[in-house]
Amino acid sequence: MSEPTYVIGHRKPDTDTVCAALAYAELKRKRGEENVSTARAGDPNPETQFVLDYWDTEAPTLLEDAAGKQLVLVDHNEYSQTVSGAREAEIVEIVDHHRIGDVETSAPIPFRNEPVGSTATILVDLFDDADATIDAQTAGLLLSGLLSDTVVLRSPTTTERDRTVAERLADTAGVDIEEYGEELLAHKSKLGEKSPREMVLGDFKEFEFGSSRVGIGQVETVEPAVVLDRREAVLDAMDDVVSERGYDALLLLVTDLLKEESTALVAGDETATVEAGLDATFSDRAAFLPGVMSRKKQVVPPLETAFE
Amino acid sequence: MSEPTYVIGHRKPDTDTVCAALAYAELKRKRGEENVSTARAGDPNPETQFVLDYWDTEAPTLLEDAAGKQLVLVDHNEYSQTVSGAREAEIVEIVDHHRIGDVETSAPIPFRNEPVGSTATILVDLFDDADATIDAQTAGLLLSGLLSDTVVLRSPTTTERDRTVAERLADTAGVDIEEYGEELLAHKSKLGEKSPREMVLGDFKEFEFGSSRVGIGQVETVEPAVVLDRREAVLDAMDDVVSERGYDALLLLVTDLLKEESTALVAGDETATVEAGLDATFSDRAAFLPGVMSRKKQVVPPLETAFE
Repeated sequence: MSEPTYVIGHRKPDTDTVCAALAYAELKRKRGEENVSTARAGDPNPETQFVLDYWDTEAPTLLEDAAGKQLVLVDHNEYSQTVSGAREAEIVEIVDHHRIGDVETSAPIPFRNEPVGSTATILVDLFDDADATIDAQTAGLLLSGLLSDTVVLRSPTTTERDRTVAERLADTAGVDIEEYGEELLAHKSKLGEKSPREMVLGDFKEFEFGSSRVGIGQVETVEPAVVLDRREAVLDAMDDVVSERGYDALLLLVTDLLKEESTALVAGDETATVEAGLDATFSDRAAFLPGVMSRKKQVVPPLETAFE
Repeated sequence: MSEPTYVIGHRKPDTDTVCAALAYAELKRKRGEENVSTARAGDPNPETQFVLDYWDTEAPTLLEDAAGKQLVLVDHNEYSQTVSGAREAEIVEIVDHHRIGDVETSAPIPFRNEPVGSTATILVDLFDDADATIDAQTAGLLLSGLLSDTVVLRSPTTTERDRTVAERLADTAGVDIEEYGEELLAHKSKLGEKSPREMVLGDFKEFEFGSSRVGIGQVETVEPAVVLDRREAVLDAMDDVVSERGYDALLLLVTDLLKEESTALVAGDETATVEAGLDATFSDRAAFLPGVMSRKKQVVPPLETAFE
């Protein structure tokens, strides 16, 4: 059998990226597309592992090098977030809910990007377009992606469509949104067990803004003090990452899920640009960001503008 | 009233780009989006003017400078093909059927790209998604875009979906596909009246392949001899364009719609790269390309690979 087409999410996989890859591969098989595999660009985090166990699903295969392969990207569309070798791969399709990034193709391909709370939300539309049934297991995976990305429908990225889709998926999967969501959130962070470096790099994305390379990590928690009480050690870990990877700026958002606010920590030489972008002042390398919960919607756009 | 959002197609507008902008603005109004205008990035060509007259529709407004405005791009997604000022505009949505280009955004936006024969084909799906009726006039415009881009369903870019959609639109619009298509093709080229420069730049697209700038014009005609008999004058016009605009290569595809083949003329310093990309040999700056009808599908991808 020839090399399959891999449906794959972003590096540092989270629940939406892994579940979207699994569900979309499933839909493709239902649509009669043969030789489709699901892959991942890194190890599942504890929340995702909980989800896979709960819905009795095997993790996708780890793809170490995508060079020469055919890829369907889900939940991302920029090279800084793709699996190794993606620049030498053929990207044949994209389904995403982020900003439009730098992936270019030679030939026309299907690209469906929508500004909703999760990739899972878009996939439900694709199942409907194909008149394909969503079974309880797939509904459970999609619901997990949706609730994880929207912090159980609390994030400002949440749309009415996400709410409607979540209710339908919860019904099919046979779980209660709030109860199941609470279990998910509990697995999101076993923060106290993490090293400062793990706090910084646990949920981490890298961006190219003009000629600047910027890393932005985020810790979403109901106990921000667990991170902020170890502030000096976390800042040291951030400095290490900046010198290893040569970032112009590195930001860690410590987001309080209950109070709906964040504290940002900063490293790198471009603090003034970060301050201009976020309209905030850093004191001892920390700034308070009231109302900020979404990296994608509230942090990336103004920083990109400031750096360019 | 505040500045509207402009739905706009590519430079050197063709029928699909103009009709897609008109139809999508119409759909947006039906979906309740207020303050939407239709714009164009250049003058309608004779075929498009025939279509506008036939369906009793006013041409979109000419937008000379898009800086600072909100744009919905239809039928293109790369900056080299956008209206002036688009890099300083906010791109809020894209509907297209070409390769994925270099447009990036800060925030998540709807981007729907599908490998079908025309943007009109995708728009019919968007009308259906919104449960919106397509009236006879809009069906006529969409059908015109579809038949123009697919050379009346003969181009290799034509999909089964294009055929199904064309039949439905023809039915709603009350025209016969072959009869109306023939009228369209007749207006596509009043080739004999054109100057050599107009032949080169009439349907022209510019690409950035790696660090190379490449222009590719196309004349689709049932009488290729009208161009090829004036070959020396056409090559002179191509040389002029290369020196004015600093292209690394300029290609003119003279496509015979009946025989389904093309003759390519070349200018610029990179003929060897063009030969490698097209797997063809130029003799006296001309090469015969049997079976080649689509710039997008058969010429751009191999040239991009060769230049990068």
